[in-house]
Amino acid sequence: MKNIGVLLSGCGVFDGSEIHEAVLTLLAIDNAGAEAICLAPCIPQHHVVNHLTGEAVPNETRNVLVEAARIARGAITDLSKIDTLTLDALILVGGYGAAKNLCNYESKGPECEVLPEIASALRSFYNAGKPLGFMCISPVIAAQVLGDHHIELTTGSDKETARNIEAMGAKHIECSASNAIVSKQGKVVSTPAYMLETSIAEVAKGVNKLVTEIIALI
Amino acid sequence: MKNIGVLLSGCGVFDGSEIHEAVLTLLAIDNAGAEAICLAPCIPQHHVVNHLTGEAVPNETRNVLVEAARIARGAITDLSKIDTLTLDALILVGGYGAAKNLCNYESKGPECEVLPEIASALRSFYNAGKPLGFMCISPVIAAQVLGDHHIELTTGSDKETARNIEAMGAKHIECSASNAIVSKQGKVVSTPAYMLETSIAEVAKGVNKLVTEIIALI
Repeated sequence: MKNIGVLLSGCGVFDGSEIHEAVLTLLAIDNAGAEAICLAPCIPQHHVVNHLTGEAVPNETRNVLVEAARIARGAITDLSKIDTLTLDALILVGGYGAAKNLCNYESKGPECEVLPEIASALRSFYNAGKPLGFMCISPVIAAQVLGDHHIELTTGSDKETARNIEAMGAKHIECSASNAIVSKQGKVVSTPAYMLETSIAEVAKGVNKLVTEIIALI
Repeated sequence: MKNIGVLLSGCGVFDGSEIHEAVLTLLAIDNAGAEAICLAPCIPQHHVVNHLTGEAVPNETRNVLVEAARIARGAITDLSKIDTLTLDALILVGGYGAAKNLCNYESKGPECEVLPEIASALRSFYNAGKPLGFMCISPVIAAQVLGDHHIELTTGSDKETARNIEAMGAKHIECSASNAIVSKQGKVVSTPAYMLETSIAEVAKGVNKLVTEIIALI
């Protein structure tokens, strides 16, 4: 059975992983007869956002791994405790957590720094010829870590994000929510998901396409 | 367009709504061309569980509506602020939150009390001939509120839960995760979901079946 790592960044679109994207990824992997291995770094969240009001909650801290465990029903591994190269593929889910907890793109744009253990996992995967998947805003992480390989990525149609991705060395390609882009360079697949104003049914199509392409590349 | 209420009880299987069940419900409703209206009561959670360790966290409180908003991407309504009878159907998602936050079944079993606003919404729906859906452990709420109507429910194959449901007046029918039971009495549909040890792909089949049956009953 093929083992696919699913890297989470918390639990909730505004301060962690986008929950629909994460669950649709787990569903697509199971439907494809592969096994999902949920992973997250054991670090404090950048902040906690009240998802009813959209406002940051002062003086509250939550842990990325502990909150991501909610999506994984407890079955999750600390990213630092696993040799990711034992996995056959690795998918990064979106949500602001990808841009706030896994890197600081949200505040620094194309000058962002990526969490070293994630940058290292992505480089080792890329160099081993293993497929990598990115959805929603997470392609900015791919661009920062692997941009010098001129990989092709999509975050949908947002002009500023596309400019930032190209500033980091990667090429941006427009794409609809129901589709996914396979890079000509490297085994890198991406889909816009909720970077576009869209419905959960459209996001599911794009995530299914991404997982299907990833598995075909293993 | 048909409007289907999706009643949540937090965000996470051990202290709130089971996240996969909730997202799969939203997906099935969108795929069916209907609209999901997420709802939750604005009340404190019974407790907060660390989903990595499975242990309750001392001295932490979270609000059911605020946490459920994570699953709904912010688009959620306080149950007390809506006349649920404006909706065409109402579905209760599972997870321990259904048994701890929406009622106290977790501690009191068949002697449980159901949150009055939820009991009232279920009775008014039932009496108006509008369909109700229940997944995972949430059929215990249906049994306590509507048991005197001798409705048929499933929570899968767990003997103790089945006994408790029958003690509250309803009839329990065994069912697999990929299927759903339509009660002969009233417009009540239920599916076991994660009450059974099963996969997300099987849960998705059962949830799709439940949503399809609910929509056919509108």
